[in-house]
Amino acid sequence: TGVATMKFKSPPVNSLSLDFLTEFCISLEKLENDRACRGVVLTSAIPKIFSSGLDITEMCGKSMEHYAEFWRAVQEMWLRLYGSNMVTVAAVNGSSPAGGCLVALSCDYRIMVENPKFSIGLNEAQLGIVAPFWFKDTFVNVVGHRVAERSLQLGSLHPTPEAHKFGLVDELVPEDKLQEKAAAVMAQWLALPDHARQLTKSMMRKAVLDRLVAHREEDVQNFISFISKESIQKSLRMYMEMLKKKK
Amino acid sequence: TGVATMKFKSPPVNSLSLDFLTEFCISLEKLENDRACRGVVLTSAIPKIFSSGLDITEMCGKSMEHYAEFWRAVQEMWLRLYGSNMVTVAAVNGSSPAGGCLVALSCDYRIMVENPKFSIGLNEAQLGIVAPFWFKDTFVNVVGHRVAERSLQLGSLHPTPEAHKFGLVDELVPEDKLQEKAAAVMAQWLALPDHARQLTKSMMRKAVLDRLVAHREEDVQNFISFISKESIQKSLRMYMEMLKKKK
Amino acid sequence: TGVATMKFKSPPVNSLSLDFLTEFCISLEKLENDRACRGVVLTSAIPKIFSSGLDITEMCGKSMEHYAEFWRAVQEMWLRLYGSNMVTVAAVNGSSPAGGCLVALSCDYRIMVENPKFSIGLNEAQLGIVAPFWFKDTFVNVVGHRVAERSLQLGSLHPTPEAHKFGLVDELVPEDKLQEKAAAVMAQWLALPDHARQLTKSMMRKAVLDRLVAHREEDVQNFISFISKESIQKSLRMYMEMLKKKK
Repeated sequence: TGVATMKFKSPPVNSLSLDFLTEFCISLEKLENDRACRGVVLTSAIPKIFSSGLDITEMCGKSMEHYAEFWRAVQEMWLRLYGSNMVTVAAVNGSSPAGGCLVALSCDYRIMVENPKFSIGLNEAQLGIVAPFWFKDTFVNVVGHRVAERSLQLGSLHPTPEAHKFGLVDELVPEDKLQEKAAAVMAQWLALPDHARQLTKSMMRKAVLDRLVAHREEDVQNFISFISKESIQKSLRMYMEMLKKKK
Repeated sequence: TGVATMKFKSPPVNSLSLDFLTEFCISLEKLENDRACRGVVLTSAIPKIFSSGLDITEMCGKSMEHYAEFWRAVQEMWLRLYGSNMVTVAAVNGSSPAGGCLVALSCDYRIMVENPKFSIGLNEAQLGIVAPFWFKDTFVNVVGHRVAERSLQLGSLHPTPEAHKFGLVDELVPEDKLQEKAAAVMAQWLALPDHARQLTKSMMRKAVLDRLVAHREEDVQNFISFISKESIQKSLRMYMEMLKKKK
Repeated sequence: TGVATMKFKSPPVNSLSLDFLTEFCISLEKLENDRACRGVVLTSAIPKIFSSGLDITEMCGKSMEHYAEFWRAVQEMWLRLYGSNMVTVAAVNGSSPAGGCLVALSCDYRIMVENPKFSIGLNEAQLGIVAPFWFKDTFVNVVGHRVAERSLQLGSLHPTPEAHKFGLVDELVPEDKLQEKAAAVMAQWLALPDHARQLTKSMMRKAVLDRLVAHREEDVQNFISFISKESIQKSLRMYMEMLKKKK
């Protein structure tokens, strides 16, 4: 059918580790170069979580070189996904904070399972860190300036009905209808001629993609100098402690 | 009353042919220079269709010179209408695909007849072509980035209730109330002092207008090189065949 | 609690006079420099009016030097408020036209008293004047391009339900719940680490703030040459006469 499915399966919570990101980029590139593949559905093989976002262990107590390598992998993932020529549908079958939300935001269409326990949002501020400008640009493109401003400052994790109301997800479905719905949406998008659709997508996203490309190394340096601050390291360690206790 | 009405009457479907565009620009310029005229209502004299958009016969099997001349006329129409000093109200009394939708989007206010058979949208992608950046800019200014991105990629023709929900049209009315409503809206806008209203309008639209002015010749060349591709010509011929069979 | 309240009390209608603006900026700067203060609630001590906006007497029949001084004070107020490191909540307990609306728009969050007699909006066009580009930028950031374009051209004063529908205010409350609600919202925002919240806010607002900073003197000159036109002076005098008769 020309449609691939990428099922995230990196227990326990599909953190975007350096390994995960590297593998994700390789898989995406393969599909991108496969002329038989026109669309990809992103979903999770792990119950209740789509992706928990950037792996905090990659940002804590590591070397400057490691931070740089990690951040370049995060950038690369976004550049490839947001700029993909394929139709990309996020079938969000669990919570999706921070980098997990970015993955969903970078797709063409977001379907989320309606479940009072699931939430989605760029909650970086809650951890004492700041979403980079290209997370913000992607977010503003989806929900507009006002909602993005408030949500980013509050580090909000939106329950599914609110996420839908804001347009952060395009559609809510019961869990057992998710794959069927994703297939139907994909079929609708694939009914269009690839070439016109791709040029249109590129026209819509180019300004935001170009902005990171133009400031990529600067953005790496910003990340390193921010993340290696002792105050930030301390926040992240405390956050990890809290997560461990939660378990 | 200081209000003119331009009734499109170019059977069968008010296609924006070179002749139509030329006449439209001349009429608009006359009104613009007539100090007694402060507002114009755009509507159709043909049942069920506001305007079917750019005339495909002008883009098919013609010379490079013709394509250039045609495209400059399309640009000119938009620059004059989007930048008009008059109050411009679209009284959309029929379907309004592609360039027809652009005409409506370029007005200050859009009233559409509520009718399950009518639809409106920039459906270029369905024909295998791509709306130029200034169609896109105009569209984003009206419906925002997310809706524009999806609608343009899918080449969506929105039924009237959806068009209203997205803000693509400002108001829906029954067919027999359209002219009355257009007159009431016009009166509301004309109650404002012209000078302040015109400066405000110019402030809101200048960035997008300036962008085409700065890239006008480049945009003509892009159009020519795109439209004269054999693959695109083939798509357009197929589309015209399909339209003929429909009749 | 780290939260200050600024209660506007400049009878009869909290006009933004040069004195008011100067005092406002000094108070804001003091709070900004007070490390114990993390948030500020803006509200009015005068029944039924939040602020009536720029004081027209400052713009009428005065010297060029006075116009320049006044306009720099308006700019300064906005630069400080829109760029504040504190959490800023507008508790809008009365009507809020023009510059009063700008004050509210420049906060992080707007709560308004639900009252059929109250309205809010940038109604400059009704007075025959034009909101400057940075009023417009602030407005577009809150309500989006389409709503801003129409509202500014019509000089609309929106009743509270409409203001809420457009996102111009975030929440409506009965009068007796306003302070309680403002305190609750403030507590929610202050739960976030200041540093991350401030960097995020700055990232969201920097482009618009920088634009005025880069064109500040030009904007002063524009204001002077516009406001000192005889036609504009006449409009303002007529408007003041009308206000006097209303009383």
